[in-house]
Formats: sequence, structure tokens, C-alpha cells
Amino acid sequence: MPAPIDSPAGHQSAEIPVPASLRSTRRLRLGRVEIGGGAPVAVQTMTNTDTRDAAATLAQIGSVARAGAEIVRLAVPDQRAAEVLREIAADSPLPLVADIHFDWRLAVKALESGVQGLRLNPGNIGGPDRVRLVAESAGKHGAVIRVGVNGGSLEKAVLDKRGGRPTAGAMVESALGQVRLLEESGFRDIKVSLKGSSVMETVAAVRLWSEVSDLPQHIGITEAGEPRSGSVKSAVGLGLMLAEGLGDTLRVSLTGPPEEEVRVAWEILRAVGLRARGVEVISCPTCGRTEGPLPALTEEVKKRLADISEPLTVAVMGCVVNGPGEARAADAGLALGRSSGLLFVGGRPLVRAPFDQLVNLLEQEVRRILKNRNSSPKTMKYRGMKNAN
Amino acid sequence: MPAPIDSPAGHQSAEIPVPASLRSTRRLRLGRVEIGGGAPVAVQTMTNTDTRDAAATLAQIGSVARAGAEIVRLAVPDQRAAEVLREIAADSPLPLVADIHFDWRLAVKALESGVQGLRLNPGNIGGPDRVRLVAESAGKHGAVIRVGVNGGSLEKAVLDKRGGRPTAGAMVESALGQVRLLEESGFRDIKVSLKGSSVMETVAAVRLWSEVSDLPQHIGITEAGEPRSGSVKSAVGLGLMLAEGLGDTLRVSLTGPPEEEVRVAWEILRAVGLRARGVEVISCPTCGRTEGPLPALTEEVKKRLADISEPLTVAVMGCVVNGPGEARAADAGLALGRSSGLLFVGGRPLVRAPFDQLVNLLEQEVRRILKNRNSSPKTMKYRGMKNAN
Repeated sequence: MPAPIDSPAGHQSAEIPVPASLRSTRRLRLGRVEIGGGAPVAVQTMTNTDTRDAAATLAQIGSVARAGAEIVRLAVPDQRAAEVLREIAADSPLPLVADIHFDWRLAVKALESGVQGLRLNPGNIGGPDRVRLVAESAGKHGAVIRVGVNGGSLEKAVLDKRGGRPTAGAMVESALGQVRLLEESGFRDIKVSLKGSSVMETVAAVRLWSEVSDLPQHIGITEAGEPRSGSVKSAVGLGLMLAEGLGDTLRVSLTGPPEEEVRVAWEILRAVGLRARGVEVISCPTCGRTEGPLPALTEEVKKRLADISEPLTVAVMGCVVNGPGEARAADAGLALGRSSGLLFVGGRPLVRAPFDQLVNLLEQEVRRILKNRNSSPKTMKYRGMKNAN
Repeated sequence: MPAPIDSPAGHQSAEIPVPASLRSTRRLRLGRVEIGGGAPVAVQTMTNTDTRDAAATLAQIGSVARAGAEIVRLAVPDQRAAEVLREIAADSPLPLVADIHFDWRLAVKALESGVQGLRLNPGNIGGPDRVRLVAESAGKHGAVIRVGVNGGSLEKAVLDKRGGRPTAGAMVESALGQVRLLEESGFRDIKVSLKGSSVMETVAAVRLWSEVSDLPQHIGITEAGEPRSGSVKSAVGLGLMLAEGLGDTLRVSLTGPPEEEVRVAWEILRAVGLRARGVEVISCPTCGRTEGPLPALTEEVKKRLADISEPLTVAVMGCVVNGPGEARAADAGLALGRSSGLLFVGGRPLVRAPFDQLVNLLEQEVRRILKNRNSSPKTMKYRGMKNAN
């Protein structure tokens, strides 16, 4: 239930970082991942392979796991996919959620195959008896069920009350109805997702849900679009929710590779100060004063350090005068001059070198920092944020 | 001064869209662009050409203007750049802001060359006499001055009070001091920018400023990084501010082309429901059920419609069953089947065609919609948002 925010005028006190979780939700367990009740906001994605191709699907699951996914969802369009899930579940490094539409038998089969979660709407599977069968099976297998409500496909009765408008209230009412169907079957391990037709409508629905229920929320912006603009919409929407302490697990939906969804999800979590993973490369915008090949070097630095999952900040700055000082918060970085650059560590210059040696030197330094950090557990903490691992 | 937010628990009532402007600021005028006092949040960017190259700089200004920039800033590193500004100002389609560091003579020269704004910190130009000369010149030319405070370069005295920590309070105190220097010279047309070392620290500073001053704010996330992750950080930070009604003009800083900064700025404004410009392409994430070449078609649609500045929503959906219905809010769209696709308008199927004809058909339809819209002024309004023009 919502806790009051301790400041006037309805926004957080300016000197205090936004609280990680303002509202406490029920704690669920999806495989080994905890969701809700103050657990770290878990990062999800969805495979886009044919689920019936176990090898391809497992390869993609491995890839998204390396990118930082913690839960993975798979489409289960038919019985064969539901059966193949057994093979996938046996080898998957991540807990699995089966995405089911309409057919309760696919849900039960997926659970028997070993998935830890279902995404299905009990209102769509053909009546209370079938809901009971699915709920009993999920209970027996210790699985979580997500009820997913979309503003674009609400029940007529819910819409009619509001003159056909899919408002936040309409979405919440629909979700409450779906949840009731499961709860009437004695099933309680439920999370919900509410997705409106716009970013702000989705935010409004997520806020409203937190006022009426303690069930954890899976948050996301639906049909966010191709990666470039989709990531901006997702960042605006999820950023708003997370900064208010809303959302217990999230997926960034992009028309693109799932690894990209995971990368953007972590960037959002880092920006709101909730969780950090991997190397954050900060760089100044180019301007008339920029010296050296800043964008190319920034790209190169990112690529070189892409395999690192520990939280770390690296700066690439366009001038040697202000660069190191302005990037004091960075663990290490480069400041470019006219024909050479400066490698700095903790805001202090270490060595000057020609452009073509800078990235090598930086990488060496970064890996040295990580090695030292790992041999001294005390320094693992990163600016007060929870580590990804 | 801040108005109270009319809901419990510190967040906006779920059923009501977030208000466009909670806090009213003083209204300024930068050339023909109004800033603050409820005016639309103006989109800025900065050239990365050599300002002394008037032709190249004007070409870039033209390009960012076409992308939707409304104000453009230029680095002015020396007297020659300040002089060339005259040539640029004479032909620029956008009002100009000269970015000045340390040298008051560059500020005065830039004003004489015809810029409508300065970005300079009066504390850095060598004493009250010089501040007075700049303030008088700015007043005479009707220009606006932005005071820009960066958490990484605060005055020692301000930091010392807080044990060296560049808190939101430290940034605000520093900005108030800089503003006082200008106000003591009788100059009032001031806006400020506050940028911390992290997204949430910047948000905290911007919130705090709105509590203590009615001077308009230029908002941005400093050193946001290369375009992909920089746009995510900017979207999280600017989204939070804008959704609270904070920010009167904005720049998205990216290590990349300024046109990209402008594109992302508009996407953020659209996501928070403040302003819309150009075609928004929504598309479903790919999944095991996706049919047809969704990502490629989405990219192609975006490219084809990139020249349109009027607000419009186009959907590209991965299945024919739910596609048109789920994308009801779109003005037009495509829903892909196994070997062909459906063109729909306003959620209704219009025609089915093979993949290679779909984008042509969609473009025809979109241009027809725009033509009809322009001949009937009543339909110019777009989902209640302010039009970009």
C-alpha cells in the first residue's frame, strides 16, 4: 500500500535521492528470481525465435542472459511448442515464462514442461472450470501467473461504463476482474501488467493499480516501436514509474533483437539510480571546441568494454582542460587534445598518448581496476546502488 | 512559484493526464521564440561545425531547423567566430545563442553581431564591471542570458559548506549567486540550467530551483553519451522533469549529429504528452507469432515519412488478427500476414497487398490524410496536444 511521500508540493525532497520503493507489494518467486516486496526490479525480455526450435531458442536465451536478462518469456503458440519447452527448461540459465493465448491446455502443458511462470488472461481461456485447472496446475508447480491488460483490448462492459474510453480506471478494473478469477480458484501468486495506448496513459494505470492492490507489477510500454524511438518512449514511461517506486519487473519492448531490449532496460534502471550493470560510458556532446575523434573513440570504448557486467563508469571527454575534472565521478576516462589524449583515473591524469593507443591503455586500466575491486570485496559497492549480481 | 499537486500520496491523480505546467515561470522572449510562463517547451540544439565557417554553420542550422529545432546555440571561441556570427545571424532561420566562456568581449561582440541569447556565467568573466558591460549590452539588444551551472565545476565556497558534495542545493546556491550578479546590473531576462553528475541529481536540482525562483529553466542531461544510451538517459531525466511541469526549453546532448538531438527531444516531448511533431511509428515487438519482415518494413516506413512535420501516428503490426484493432489510435498502418499485409486506416482494413507494395500504399494513404487534414483546419488538432507549428 502506498506510503506518503515526505515532502510538500507532491514531489520528492530535492536533496534526497528518489526512494527505491515507495509502495510495498507482495513478494513472489519466479524460479530463483524474487519479484516485488522490495526485491530488485527484475529485467525481462522475450525470445523471437520459433519456440519449437529448442536449439535456436536456447542459444538466444543464453545470449540475453549474458546481456543481463533475468527472466525470459517465450511464445507458446501450439502443443508442440509447449512440449519443446521441457527441453528448453532443462537447459535454460534463466527462469521461463510461457506466453499463452486462449488455450488452457497449452498453459498446463507448459507448466508440466517446467516453466516457472505463465502470461495468460484467465478471462480468455473458456470459463471458470478451465481457470481452476490452470490455477491448480500453476499452484502445484509453484509458478507465477501474469495477468496482462492492454488498453486496446478491454472488455466491452468495462469500456461502456466510460463511454468507450480505455482509461486508466478501465484498465485497472479489467485487471481486478481477471485477478479475481484466479483468486476464486485459490491462486495468489499473481502479477499484473497494465499497458495503455500511450506512455502517459500507461503511467496513469500503473499509478492507479498501486493504490488499489499489493500485487506486483510487470511494467512496460507496449508497441514502443523501432529501437531508437522505442527506447526513448520506454525510458520516459518506465523512468517515471520507477522513480516513483512503481514496477517490480520490467520489459522494454522493441522491434529489434531482445539483447537490445535488455541493454536499454539496464540503462533505464541505472539512470533512475536503482540498479547498475556493466560499463556506463559518459561523453560530452561535440561542440565547436571539441578536439580529436570523439564519437569514434566513444564507440570503440563501448565495444571494447561490452563484455564487462560489473558496474563501472568510463568518460570520454572532448577537451583536456575541463575533461578530467568534469568527469571526476568516472572510474577512468580519456580526455582528447588536438593530436593526443590523456588517460585519467579518478579525475587525475595518468598518462598522455597518441589517439591510436588511448583505447588500449584505457582498457588495460579498466581491467586492472576491476581486478583490484574483485580482490577487495569492500569496493564492490557502487555509488550506493544495488549490484546486478 | 510552485502550485500544489492536487492528489494524495504525492503523485498525480491517475485518471487525469499529467498537467503541462505545474509551476509558472517568468516569460522571456528569445528572438521570436517565447520561453517560460506556459509557452510550449522550446527545442534547442547546438551546432558542431566551426562557427568561423559561416557556410557550413548555416547549412547545419538549416538542417536542424528542418528537423524541428527552434533555437540553436553556437560555440564562440574567439573574436573571429564572434564576428562571423553577424553573417550567420543575417541568414539564420532560427534565433541564435552564443556560447561564451570567460571572455566578456566575445559576449558583447556576439550581441553586436545579432545573436538573441548568450550562454555565459557572469562569475567567470572577470568582475562586476565586466558583468555590467555585458548586461547592458544584452539589455540594449533585447537578448536573454542563460546562466549554466554544472555540478562538476561549482565554486569552492559552495562545495565546502556541504563537505565537498555537489548536491542539488549546492547547484541551486551557485545559480542564485550567478543570477544575483546579473540582477545587480539591472538585467532580468535570465534563464538557468542546472546539471548534476547523474540523472537523478539533475532532476533534484531542477525540482529545487522551481521552489526558489520563477526564472525559466533550460533543462538537459549533461554528457549523456553516445546516441543510443545518451537518448535513454536524457529521456529518463527530461521525462521526469517535463511530466512534473518543469523545464521551459530543453536540449538533448548526444555525442552525435545535432539533428539526432532534435529528433530525440521531440520524441520525449511526445511521450510525455506535451508536444507532437512528425510521424510516430508504433510497432509491436517481434515474437514467435510475428509474421512477415516487421523490422525491415518499420524502418522503411520511418524513412519514407521522415519529411513530414505534422503530427501523425502510423502503426506497423506483426499480425493481421489483432493488429488493426490494437493500433486503433493510429491514423494508418500495416498489419502483416504470412505472405501479404493489410493496409488499415483508423483501425479499419482498407486493402490487402503483397509486402513489396505495402509501404507505397501506406505512404499514399498518409499523404492523402495530410492533404485532407490541411484542407479542413478543424482536424489539425492531434489528441489534444499542441501542434509543433
